[in-house]
This record gives sequence, structure tokens and C-alpha cells, in this order.
Amino acid sequence: MRVAIVGATGAVGHELLSVLERSPLQFTELQLYASPRSAGTTLPFRGQDLTVQVTPEGAIPADVILASAGASISKALAPAWVAGGAVVIDNSSAFRYDDHVPLVVPEVNGEAALQHQGIIANPNCTTAIAAVAVYPLHRQYGVRRMIVSTYQATSGAGAKGMDELLEGTRAVLDGAEATAQVFAHPIPFNVIPHIDAFQANGYTKEEMKVVWETRKIFGEPDLVVSCTAVRIPTLRTHSEAITLELERPATPDEARDLLRGAPGVEVRDNPGDKLYPMPLTASGKYAVEVGRIRESLVFPGGLELFVAGDQLLKGAALNAVQIAEYLQQHGALPQ
Amino acid sequence: MRVAIVGATGAVGHELLSVLERSPLQFTELQLYASPRSAGTTLPFRGQDLTVQVTPEGAIPADVILASAGASISKALAPAWVAGGAVVIDNSSAFRYDDHVPLVVPEVNGEAALQHQGIIANPNCTTAIAAVAVYPLHRQYGVRRMIVSTYQATSGAGAKGMDELLEGTRAVLDGAEATAQVFAHPIPFNVIPHIDAFQANGYTKEEMKVVWETRKIFGEPDLVVSCTAVRIPTLRTHSEAITLELERPATPDEARDLLRGAPGVEVRDNPGDKLYPMPLTASGKYAVEVGRIRESLVFPGGLELFVAGDQLLKGAALNAVQIAEYLQQHGALPQ
Repeated sequence: MRVAIVGATGAVGHELLSVLERSPLQFTELQLYASPRSAGTTLPFRGQDLTVQVTPEGAIPADVILASAGASISKALAPAWVAGGAVVIDNSSAFRYDDHVPLVVPEVNGEAALQHQGIIANPNCTTAIAAVAVYPLHRQYGVRRMIVSTYQATSGAGAKGMDELLEGTRAVLDGAEATAQVFAHPIPFNVIPHIDAFQANGYTKEEMKVVWETRKIFGEPDLVVSCTAVRIPTLRTHSEAITLELERPATPDEARDLLRGAPGVEVRDNPGDKLYPMPLTASGKYAVEVGRIRESLVFPGGLELFVAGDQLLKGAALNAVQIAEYLQQHGALPQ
Repeated sequence: MRVAIVGATGAVGHELLSVLERSPLQFTELQLYASPRSAGTTLPFRGQDLTVQVTPEGAIPADVILASAGASISKALAPAWVAGGAVVIDNSSAFRYDDHVPLVVPEVNGEAALQHQGIIANPNCTTAIAAVAVYPLHRQYGVRRMIVSTYQATSGAGAKGMDELLEGTRAVLDGAEATAQVFAHPIPFNVIPHIDAFQANGYTKEEMKVVWETRKIFGEPDLVVSCTAVRIPTLRTHSEAITLELERPATPDEARDLLRGAPGVEVRDNPGDKLYPMPLTASGKYAVEVGRIRESLVFPGGLELFVAGDQLLKGAALNAVQIAEYLQQHGALPQ
């Protein structure tokens, strides 16, 4: 099987190479594509140097294309890729809300990927991380209401976001001022409750993605979800404080037991030993850390929890590769 | 009137001096006290250099004592200060839950301060900031449930907390590792969902302070409140994402209008101009910034909002001085 990465030189592209390197996915060829600016550079993969090519205007000779070059490129080119015979796993928001495009977190709705018509969408990073932790609880206890507050890392805005944090932090420590190009305001030592564009209802698109995408991934069009999405001065891993009202009461012990057996989850919940989810421990990890599990004080029988997941991995690159693995394991991609 | 500050050399002590310098409070003498380690140093105040004295074991010859030297010192010494004739405004948690000690945010329950029996407690910083923003909404619309997620600055742990963030950040930028003495884990570029000690119910004491103290300040012993308290790598100003279920529905416009007339609040809520609460703009400001006001997606007719307040000011020094001002304005302290 031939695999192609479009957007190979970005932050997610970097992680795609690293995840593919360790993946059980069977493939004989890996093609790397990026913008003309990055073309010609080489990237190491399993002991070889692969040359980055310019993303072509038309078809790409691959069986599966992992696209992570932004929504406008996906929107413009994915139809040609599909026409050329490839399955497209798209990391952008271009197709997530199309009825004929499955939106997939393999731990939750892997089987939806098998119904694709050429394009499979990878969810928003914040949504994917929450979904891995919340879906097992939803299946067992029924989530009635879900309230999410996020603590999102600068790499959610790509490598440029991380650079802006690092350079700005150095400037502030040297007594100068940080500037803002990637973010709406300087991010060093600051908190910005604004990710993606504001919508008519006062929520940002990032916040509404959590609402829309959680419903689609869970297959629950009426699920009641709200979100406040906040950028903070960290490098990678998104954390989330989640409050759940449940149809059927769950004790924290029951929830911990259930989540210990859940795919993609690492229960890290022993406050006495100072064990709880944190970017410091979740960064670079495939599993989403879940902890601070306690009975909700506002929803009796409900739960409050804290999760931390590497948004470049489970929120992007890892999830995309896992979708390809799922397809191959189910005969929907060649070996 | 004679004013004394106990804990004059700490982070809150520093702010107390600065707030008193601009305060309308009438006083003829300002005494500064701290631990033996800091005694003898001088601090500037209105053009004079005031010498810091060792906190005595017994009474202090002052009419009002602003205490900010920690709960154990307040617990041990405040009874003697009261016996010596002083009114004690205590910034620690030592007396906040005593039935005979008023817990006061002047914008909310200033009149409770007049009922004191010698000691008045200043609330936890996170609680005070939320209370200023939420109380006007509670009075008008009736808060039924309140869910808070916090984004708390390192100076909540004093000047040492800020130093640990700054030194650790320098270390990380130089390729070394940050260490943790003040916080449970390294805080640079990290998120720590652990402030104060864990309680039997899985919540931290910081989180339960928000529950207990909001009830006491609002005079609503049954108010349903929950909180996730999280330390993030910022220097000062606590931010909070707050979700409110209301007895009587409020539109975001009504809430904004109400809050524009509320004491201690600055409505900063124009997403189109990238105006919303942030530490960058709220630090050093007396008012609590309130914005991102929108209808709740989980509680129809309810609200979601984001607040940012300088926790060294409204969450500590400013609130304490405002209590003294209130007492003096109402004849409960001499001129």
C-alpha cells in the first residue's frame, strides 16, 4: 500500500512521520508533500531520507492520503485525490460536518470509517481528547449534559504557535514585550479565551466544534454540550475540565474501574501521590490521561474529571493513523 | 486612626501598601510588621521610609490590623490583637468558616462587616473575584447552579510562586529542567490541577473554598456550586470560566447591561474587537473584568461567562482595604 502525507513539514506532519514509524500499518511506500516553500527538503523515516515534493494540483498516486495542510487545501484538492482512487483521512475542518463524511475516533466509532465515500474526517483535537475519556462513561451511564473548559497549548496553532510562545517568553524575561502574530494577543504569561472565529451565538468556532463534533462522533444529535475554549502558555497537550450530568448515577470508583479498561485511556488518579493529568506527563503519550474523578457537586450522581491529551497525537496525527490502521485491519485498505 | 499591616513584606503586603497609598481611608499612622527575617528593612510609603518591625507576640497598638502572614500566625495572634482593641481584617483562611466571623466582599455583603466581633475575614481570592461578577446576576436572576473552572496565577502562592515560575521558565528555555518547591510539580509550560490539600470528597480545599465561601458571602447556605481549580504558568490575575443555571432567564444583553452598572466590575465583552477578560489587561486593575457573556448551551436561559481579576488586588489586598474603608465610612472605625 502507498501512503501519502500532505502537509508533511508542519507540526502535525512531523508527528505523522513519528507515529507511522512505529505503526503496525502495512505500507510499501511513503510520499511526502508540502507547499513549494518546503519542497526539496528531506525528512528521515525508518533510516531513509525522504524528499518532500510540491503538493500537486490533481490526483496523488497513493492508496491513503493523510492530509494536514489546512481546510482550504483539503477543500480544493480532496475531490481530485478521491477521484484518483485514494482514501483521504483529513485532519482539517473542511468536511467534518458533511453528512456523507464520517467523523471518526476509532475508540468510539471506528465502524463509521468503513462507510466512507472517499473522505474520512479527523476531529478537532479538543473534541477527540474529550471523546476518548467521556464515551465509555456515556455508553455505560448516559451523558445528559456535558460542560467543558479547556486549557489549550500553543501548538494547537501549529509550530508557529509554539515559536511565538517561546520567543515571546524570552522577550518578556529580558524585559521586552511579547508580540502577537499567530494569536490575537501576546500569549506569554497570559490567558486568551478566544480560539478560532466568534460565531453569532457568542461562542467561538472552536467551542462549537466540541459541541457539533461530539454529537456526530457519539451518534447523539441532541447531546447537550457546552464549552469554553481557552489558550494558555503551554507548548503541547490540551487539558480539559469536564462536568457530566448522567442518566444513571456513577460513583467515582465505578468510573475509574470502567475507564481503566477503556481503549486509549490512562487513568492517572491518585491525588495522595500527586498523580493527576498534566501536560508534563501526557505530552508525547498516546493515551489520554484521565483523573480528578469525583462526584459532581452540581449534578448528584454525575461526575467531574480532568483530562490531558497530547493534541498533536490523539488530537491529530495518532488518530489519523489509527483510522488508517482500522481500515486496513478491516480490509478496507490494501496491505 | 492607626493602621497596621502584619506580613508587610509578602506579595499581598506589597499590594496592601500600594492600595493604601491611593486609598481614601483616613489614618495618621501606618505600622509594618513581618517575620524576624524581614524586620529592619524599610518600605517606602507616601514619600517616607517605614521600618518593618518584628510581629510581636501580643497586642499591636493599632485600630485596624490588615493581617496577611498566613493562617497559623493569624490563628495564634488574632485573639490577642482583638483583646488589645484592634479590628482585624484577616486575609488567611483561619477564621473564614467561623459563624461569628463575617466573610466580606464589600460589593456583595459590606453590611455584614458591621456585625463583626473583632475579626473580619477576607475571602479566598478565587471566590472574591467570582463573587463580584456573579452576585449582581444572582440578585437579579437567582443562581440555581454555578460551575467554575479556574486558571490561577503563580502569585496565588505568593512571591515565591512567581519566582519559581520565572526561574523555572529560564531553566527550560536554556535546555535545563525546572524544579518544584512551591508547587507540587514544575509549573513552567505545565498545568497543575491541584491547589491546596485534597479533601475526602476528591475536591481540593481550594475548590471547596469556592463552594463554602460563595455560600457564606451570598448568604445562601444551599447554593449549588462546583469548582475545578487549576494552576497555570501565569504571573498574576486569576481567570475563571463560569457556567450559571438561573431561576429566571437572562439574555446576554440584559446581563451585560446589569453588570455595566455593578460595582467592582468592568464589562470587557466585544469579541469583534478582540475584547475579553485576560490577565494581560486585568493585572494591576481594581475592577474584575467580565466578558464572553453568552447564553448557556446546557442551561437554557442561563449564562456562561469568563472573568479575570487581579487576585493580589480584588482577591486580597484591595478587598481588605475596601473593608476598612467601609467600616470607616459607616462609623465603625475612627477617622
